[in-house]
Amino acid sequence: MEIDMERSLEKVKAASRIIMNATASQKNDALMNIVMLLKEHREQIYAKNIKDVEYAKSSGLQTAMIDRLTLDDKRFESMLNGVLNIVNQNDPVGNIDEGFKRPNDLIIYKTRVPIGVIGIIYESRPNVTIDAAALCIKSGNASILKGGKESANTNRILSNITREALMNAGLDKNAVLLFEDPERLYISKLLKAKSYIDLIIPRGGEGLINFVTENSLIPIVKHDKGLCHTYIDVDADIDKAISIAYNAKVNRPGVCNAMETLLINVNIAGEVLPKLTSLYNKAGVEIRGCELTCKYAHVTQADKKDWDTEYLDLIISIKIVSSLEDAMDHIYKHGSGHSEAIITDNYTTAQRFLQYIDAAAVYVNASTRFTDGAEFGLGAEIGISTQKLHCRGPMGLKDLTTTKYIVYGSGQIRE
Amino acid sequence: MEIDMERSLEKVKAASRIIMNATASQKNDALMNIVMLLKEHREQIYAKNIKDVEYAKSSGLQTAMIDRLTLDDKRFESMLNGVLNIVNQNDPVGNIDEGFKRPNDLIIYKTRVPIGVIGIIYESRPNVTIDAAALCIKSGNASILKGGKESANTNRILSNITREALMNAGLDKNAVLLFEDPERLYISKLLKAKSYIDLIIPRGGEGLINFVTENSLIPIVKHDKGLCHTYIDVDADIDKAISIAYNAKVNRPGVCNAMETLLINVNIAGEVLPKLTSLYNKAGVEIRGCELTCKYAHVTQADKKDWDTEYLDLIISIKIVSSLEDAMDHIYKHGSGHSEAIITDNYTTAQRFLQYIDAAAVYVNASTRFTDGAEFGLGAEIGISTQKLHCRGPMGLKDLTTTKYIVYGSGQIRE
Repeated sequence: MEIDMERSLEKVKAASRIIMNATASQKNDALMNIVMLLKEHREQIYAKNIKDVEYAKSSGLQTAMIDRLTLDDKRFESMLNGVLNIVNQNDPVGNIDEGFKRPNDLIIYKTRVPIGVIGIIYESRPNVTIDAAALCIKSGNASILKGGKESANTNRILSNITREALMNAGLDKNAVLLFEDPERLYISKLLKAKSYIDLIIPRGGEGLINFVTENSLIPIVKHDKGLCHTYIDVDADIDKAISIAYNAKVNRPGVCNAMETLLINVNIAGEVLPKLTSLYNKAGVEIRGCELTCKYAHVTQADKKDWDTEYLDLIISIKIVSSLEDAMDHIYKHGSGHSEAIITDNYTTAQRFLQYIDAAAVYVNASTRFTDGAEFGLGAEIGISTQKLHCRGPMGLKDLTTTKYIVYGSGQIRE
Repeated sequence: MEIDMERSLEKVKAASRIIMNATASQKNDALMNIVMLLKEHREQIYAKNIKDVEYAKSSGLQTAMIDRLTLDDKRFESMLNGVLNIVNQNDPVGNIDEGFKRPNDLIIYKTRVPIGVIGIIYESRPNVTIDAAALCIKSGNASILKGGKESANTNRILSNITREALMNAGLDKNAVLLFEDPERLYISKLLKAKSYIDLIIPRGGEGLINFVTENSLIPIVKHDKGLCHTYIDVDADIDKAISIAYNAKVNRPGVCNAMETLLINVNIAGEVLPKLTSLYNKAGVEIRGCELTCKYAHVTQADKKDWDTEYLDLIISIKIVSSLEDAMDHIYKHGSGHSEAIITDNYTTAQRFLQYIDAAAVYVNASTRFTDGAEFGLGAEIGISTQKLHCRGPMGLKDLTTTKYIVYGSGQIRE
């Protein structure tokens, strides 16, 4: 490892030891300082952002990427509100998960403590710099932020603000470190620095996530794809089914909790499909149906690979299934373990689906779009984990902590 | 991936879907069948074990390794009792961690579900085959067992017994698979089979653990080294201090929760050291002390690398420190985050130590030897995690599960 990189990591680790033991009010002070400094430096931040945007344009970046990179008033306000939101959440550190008095009178309890140093690797959105740093500060973690090089100027001023905010709250500024590596010379080394970093969170496209998975010696929590299904059962309430299936696809198709494939029981398909496809058509949704679906509605025939595609777009694949089991088998084979829903009024069918589907969130009679930290009442989230470990589903402040056993003795020794 | 290996993994994954949804009584039936079959086949198991032991002797394996490999009556009984113990523990699957009704009337709760398929990679002890399979069965997980090649015959008969036991309980026998790979041709591929395996648990020496960490694309929970400290504070009760420091080193020096380094406050060292070193001497403990320690007692001077050595033997390093802060700094630099203890009667000092020491278990006035699933009241454990994620400390049945969100709706869509 390069000397300089090692020195930086040592500084972050030392700062983590301090923020790990900071009080809730100290951490909130730092967050309020971020809000204040962001407001104060608004114009400078915009100026840096314009620099990034102009450079991105001149180097021919995709429009979508430039859009994500751009900070406008709305995004700036939402960044401020995000931090205020985190201030208002409870500090998870110090909460007690469970405890017991043992027969030998040892008093043992399991308490929540910060994880330590968290590396967050993300792409163009500069607001992640503030979001991630704020969530880590509140949960007592130090963070190493590796943003996209296209937002380097914006990320630099934003991370400097968080460092100043920490300092003004009496904490060590090195609890936030912007890791600049435009030539990607050090990222592989960072992913191997397991004595300094406790967790890596990659946020971004498949390429980024695969790179991190293949190169990291540090535990990872991935925020991977969401190939979500909704199954309309034979006993579904038709109106609810249509409203939910419409919402799950159309409300915000570009996010991971949007539905990609709709499964419909063959005995209700004739009733549901015409109404639903007409609504989808009006909303401009491209429909790709199985052979049977094509008999009920004028839609394109789906390809084999449609069942494994996360469109993240106004495109849906529809399959007619013969039974609940058939639907669950399809989800088993093609689901990504994110969010799966059934629409039914049959109690036993609903319970079977909830039991047998293995995913981060399983729904009855609601849109998969609710899989989200705020909607679940967990507060702000750093992402939605599609892994089974160490946390699954929306990853909030509590998931940014681990545990430690506290043992109160009175001289106990082991026989 | 080789076709055959892929087929085997597919079978395990299919079996995991079944055992994941098995009832507690089905899983207990399978466990009771294991006990019955072990008893029935006791002589055959011994015969296979003798074959392994003889082969090990003829190929010149170390005595310690041959000892670990050998199944005698005592170990056989303890294997049986281990399974009965797991039968008597509560099934963690289906427990509800938390739940809430949201303002939009969605009812959301977080329930415990099996992880899926767990790969356990271990060395010579054949009893791990039964322990690990039984813990996985009870927690609803399928297991892939990769034992040491020196215990191949014993592992084969033991794993066949667990498969028969599963079958006789109406479950799929492929929920336990012995992964035989004497030439280590496939282990790297196994560690990359992330679509089939959800978690890898390596149990063994440093070489094994490093190999797994460097090659796995699957999340790992490591059971790594324990470099545990005990700090005798200036306000310690001398008798307790001596009894605990003696126990933590001598009770069972070869395990990870045994103390390796003793820290003593300079203002109490003169009183503690002569008594303690005389006890250690009688027990045959080799003492390596810091410069100052050598002035108080006739001991060898410690080398710089002693502070980072897990002896796992009747050897101890002793350092005299000037203060609590000094002790905590030493632990911060040299501890492995396993178990750390302070001996003190000062309330504020105790609380500071509990707060600032970052380890799986932190003790006041008790021996570090208690860090153990059974001693903590968690029941049987698959090991002691020295990672911060996904679980930390003794890893019991609950830690062999993950969570899923269950969402009961009544037609909710997202605005």
